[in-house]
Amino acid sequence: MEQIVEARRETVARADAPAARVICEALEYETTSAPEFIDITDDVMGVVEAAGIQFGQVSIYSQHTTAAIKINENEPLLLRDMARTLRNFAPPNAYYEHNDFSRRTVNMNEDECANGHAHCQHLFLGASETVPVIDGRIALGTWQRVFLVELDHPRMRRVLVNVVGAG
Amino acid sequence: MEQIVEARRETVARADAPAARVICEALEYETTSAPEFIDITDDVMGVVEAAGIQFGQVSIYSQHTTAAIKINENEPLLLRDMARTLRNFAPPNAYYEHNDFSRRTVNMNEDECANGHAHCQHLFLGASETVPVIDGRIALGTWQRVFLVELDHPRMRRVLVNVVGAG
Amino acid sequence: MEQIVEARRETVARADAPAARVICEALEYETTSAPEFIDITDDVMGVVEAAGIQFGQVSIYSQHTTAAIKINENEPLLLRDMARTLRNFAPPNAYYEHNDFSRRTVNMNEDECANGHAHCQHLFLGASETVPVIDGRIALGTWQRVFLVELDHPRMRRVLVNVVGAG
Repeated sequence: MEQIVEARRETVARADAPAARVICEALEYETTSAPEFIDITDDVMGVVEAAGIQFGQVSIYSQHTTAAIKINENEPLLLRDMARTLRNFAPPNAYYEHNDFSRRTVNMNEDECANGHAHCQHLFLGASETVPVIDGRIALGTWQRVFLVELDHPRMRRVLVNVVGAG
Repeated sequence: MEQIVEARRETVARADAPAARVICEALEYETTSAPEFIDITDDVMGVVEAAGIQFGQVSIYSQHTTAAIKINENEPLLLRDMARTLRNFAPPNAYYEHNDFSRRTVNMNEDECANGHAHCQHLFLGASETVPVIDGRIALGTWQRVFLVELDHPRMRRVLVNVVGAG
Repeated sequence: MEQIVEARRETVARADAPAARVICEALEYETTSAPEFIDITDDVMGVVEAAGIQFGQVSIYSQHTTAAIKINENEPLLLRDMARTLRNFAPPNAYYEHNDFSRRTVNMNEDECANGHAHCQHLFLGASETVPVIDGRIALGTWQRVFLVELDHPRMRRVLVNVVGAG
């Protein structure tokens, strides 16, 4: 496995602005199944373009422990493959101590359901993605789309889109 | 899998500040086992609140290749489920070429131990999480806690809490 | 699993700068196999040091859905272990609906190949890593190196190195 690879390099942004700017918008989605991949790219693009921040970055952040943010391709058959991969990795019907409510001493609430698998899937996915902002737009690659990934029983989910930068 | 979901949208922060501000604090923890989930949320909150940065983001960063940063729920039985998931994914007693010290030509040090499993677990977890800062506070959701995850033999671990923003 | 661990805390950076600064550079690499771990640390360091930004953060971002950015150790035998872990997690020769081109209705292009495994591996790795910048340098730990991870058939890959900060 040879490690020396020559890079081609190009400057794509350079900004010194008189002010630091931050815009944060919350987006809320009603999910319908699990695992479910909800393509939120257009909403995220809208927030970034309305923000008027020319250079910097945008973090897309899920405020949940059983709903993740990921970037991948929006091809319907692939979404089924990724859903199956998640189910195989941590099957809903496997044994999770977290689902044994008789032993739980903390964090029991009326909303609680057997969701150990969703937490274990979330551990390997993550709560956020961070993408550069260039010329006022999110710098996604050709096939990249931003997904809110529902892992648990469907409900209202809250995503923060936080643009930090200059200009 | 239907992809069109209507979002509800709400502005939660908007700041133009006369200066960009950055505060970075290092936190060090003595770990005791592996996999071990150390809840560092209160320390991270303390750094953010002391920083006096009103809007922006905070990155929590592990300076290690066998200790990760993740956000999940702090429920003791769930932490056992997640530890078991990690052990099953890359078992300590499986075969790793990295553990064959007789073949190693680089990166051997006095501290070295058979930790191929810890590196492979870390590959799927990651070194950092990035969370928005709103009104001077880290914008964690109700059940979200920040964990330093020890994957290797216990030792002193160093976490950087880097707040970048305005105001 | 005891959760109360006392942290040692130390301030490593504190900056109030008259301007927010953003520098974004694109790096391009020709990959040669999969999974392939390309150590791009020296190039990333070069971008950060040339940027002249004293404090803030750098995000290293892959503009692809089958090439990831990860931080781990550059030890040749370990890179083989991690490659094997990825192949075992989502084997190239397993069944993926995404590879059934006769059923595909969107996102078919001349470049298309059977890469369902690469997307499923990418789902668990991620598109970016974010690292603090301190005193004008990327704050990597002793053993940390930044890798572009090729998961699909070899080609030209584009990585954005986005430095956001003050000073």
